[in-house]
Amino acid sequence: MKRPEVSVRGKNVPRSAIRKLVPFAKDREKTGVKIYKLNIGQPDVETPVEFWEGVRNFKEKVLAYAPSEGRPELIKSFVQYYNNLGFDITAEQLVVIMGGIEGILFAVLAVTDPGDEIIVAEPYYSNYLGVAAMAQVKFVAFSTTVECGYHLPDKAEIVKKITPRTKAMLFASPGNPTGCVYTRQEMEMLAEIAKEHGLFLLSDEVYREFTYDGEFATSILQIPGTEDCGIVIDSVSKRYSACGARLGCIVSKNKEVISSVLANATVRLSAGTLDQVAIANCINVPDSYFKAVRQDYVERRDIVVKALNSVDDVVCRTPKGAFYIMAKLKGIDTEVFAKWLLTDFAIDNETVMIAPGAGFYATEGCGRDEIRIAYVYKAPIMKRAMEVLCAGIRAFRQKNQSAS
Amino acid sequence: MKRPEVSVRGKNVPRSAIRKLVPFAKDREKTGVKIYKLNIGQPDVETPVEFWEGVRNFKEKVLAYAPSEGRPELIKSFVQYYNNLGFDITAEQLVVIMGGIEGILFAVLAVTDPGDEIIVAEPYYSNYLGVAAMAQVKFVAFSTTVECGYHLPDKAEIVKKITPRTKAMLFASPGNPTGCVYTRQEMEMLAEIAKEHGLFLLSDEVYREFTYDGEFATSILQIPGTEDCGIVIDSVSKRYSACGARLGCIVSKNKEVISSVLANATVRLSAGTLDQVAIANCINVPDSYFKAVRQDYVERRDIVVKALNSVDDVVCRTPKGAFYIMAKLKGIDTEVFAKWLLTDFAIDNETVMIAPGAGFYATEGCGRDEIRIAYVYKAPIMKRAMEVLCAGIRAFRQKNQSAS
Repeated sequence: MKRPEVSVRGKNVPRSAIRKLVPFAKDREKTGVKIYKLNIGQPDVETPVEFWEGVRNFKEKVLAYAPSEGRPELIKSFVQYYNNLGFDITAEQLVVIMGGIEGILFAVLAVTDPGDEIIVAEPYYSNYLGVAAMAQVKFVAFSTTVECGYHLPDKAEIVKKITPRTKAMLFASPGNPTGCVYTRQEMEMLAEIAKEHGLFLLSDEVYREFTYDGEFATSILQIPGTEDCGIVIDSVSKRYSACGARLGCIVSKNKEVISSVLANATVRLSAGTLDQVAIANCINVPDSYFKAVRQDYVERRDIVVKALNSVDDVVCRTPKGAFYIMAKLKGIDTEVFAKWLLTDFAIDNETVMIAPGAGFYATEGCGRDEIRIAYVYKAPIMKRAMEVLCAGIRAFRQKNQSAS
Repeated sequence: MKRPEVSVRGKNVPRSAIRKLVPFAKDREKTGVKIYKLNIGQPDVETPVEFWEGVRNFKEKVLAYAPSEGRPELIKSFVQYYNNLGFDITAEQLVVIMGGIEGILFAVLAVTDPGDEIIVAEPYYSNYLGVAAMAQVKFVAFSTTVECGYHLPDKAEIVKKITPRTKAMLFASPGNPTGCVYTRQEMEMLAEIAKEHGLFLLSDEVYREFTYDGEFATSILQIPGTEDCGIVIDSVSKRYSACGARLGCIVSKNKEVISSVLANATVRLSAGTLDQVAIANCINVPDSYFKAVRQDYVERRDIVVKALNSVDDVVCRTPKGAFYIMAKLKGIDTEVFAKWLLTDFAIDNETVMIAPGAGFYATEGCGRDEIRIAYVYKAPIMKRAMEVLCAGIRAFRQKNQSAS
């Protein structure tokens, strides 16, 4: 009689730093305290009517598997979407995926073997770490800083991270958690490094629609010479505020990459059929929808930046994309702070939940004084939430000063 | 300037044997030949009205992420479903997954490290191989035969496959591709081996509802003493004829397993929200639905078995579950035969597409004279399809005899 043991990797799946805070939030809510959840990227923006129209128009009697590469109408609508953006993409260069993370996983499996390395910019989207664990690859990070708005360092800083095991670079622009939108020059530099060193470029472009102040998110698909190395991971979660639809696509002009991705897509048979039909209809979402959403986010962002700048020793830059902002709270251990906000702090019976920065870094000790805020609520709510947060920062500092 | 290279595992994702036949089928269809597709498990059974009711009743304005463990109403309905079956399951013992394959992957990741071994019965569901490749584990197979209806061999035959790297056994009952339903004694034997050798038991039970002739699919959850080792992978694809819904669950009483599965579920954020709400409502599907479906399948199965038995040198047993049948076509190389059916054969401008048996075996050379038939069409269509197939077997044999 022997008890079976969970595997090493089974034990070590990276647990989300944010998730650790959830029990504290739940306990506090039970005491009647209201918590503004600035810790997650779930926008309050309404899913466009075109999605629900698509759902209603589905008349098939059997909810059958979709083809592994995706339903034809969805592939067609994605191709049209890219063509509208001026990207020269065909149906054969695209595989439908069940959300950005599946896309990252299939792309990573296509370009790495276990033990291989992928270069990433820190801070990065923390769920990438889970993919690295599943695929048994190592992320090698170079640093970007709040002072530089999390833009890329010099080419030499990136190149020196390359080893014989490096197979790819993975980056996101507009970035989660930073909100940083890489310039065309930065995208060209990444492409140059990839080409010079025979690396793949995994470009997570799921926040493409969310750029502000006239900024434009350059896609790797727009950089000449990336036909072999460029792999775009895209998702409809944020584009159509349809996080629950679990759909996106991988785009690459490299046929071997697409063949490998498609083989893995075949293993899991199909993405959701009804979601695919509904999202296909979202090609009809008018520009005015996106314009209104962008205006909304600019207003929210400005509220957050203004509030943070009103507090001493808080460093942040105005992000140009996505709906996140990273800020440095000088002298504050943000893991302790985030927990304290949930367990001890409140004004008028309200508090906030934020994501501590360290969870977005692989390098031990990095990001300990940073936080990520998702500005996912309407402006008046964001305003109030920021008042509460700023009061929290001041109160936490005061408490620590009195203690020392 | 270097061209990046796809990885070894990227190149070697197992390509489905059936998929290789698809281009031949497409080409033939262009010539106006009708093809009965007996090669895939996509039933023609209508998705129950309760699913569409669930879709219509969804009134949220934002299609948000679901919790990573699943929407509360779906978890509740799954718990009720198991309780109705007499299985003592609670919400904490269950994680919602995006289809059976994701479930197998998360279970395999929880219990194995790269290079570990999992014991399987051959023939097995071929997509398992893709999971093994993703997880970098080795499947070690023992054989079951058409003559024994693909039931398990003696305990000693299974035990002798155990090595120091063996971490788990993975099996499906009712089985795909065999249709075999393991007896309670067989399930007890598997549990005994697991307990004696400290192995996990991954039990793929997605065809639970599909048993015939008074047969009952024993769940590993019903075998005493499997609290530590038992992991059930379940799916709604077949249960509610909702293959396009990409939903199911992992059930285990082992807390470490559930914790690991949940951590990986958190990495990919959420299963589809709308599908979850709709499937939750399927707890209201009446027993009469399943009774009618089972009656339908028995009729179809009997048509297939009768037809196959009318051909000389074809060996098959009457399967008691799922909607597949494996048959041995003595002396026929079924890969050649399956292709020939698509490229050269027709009667009255009709032919059939079948799955060659070798794709369901890991052992080189095994299953070369076997085929899998999915009886997924209504009885009159199945009858005609089997006439065409049987004519095909006879014609292929005649052709080969004249050639030799």
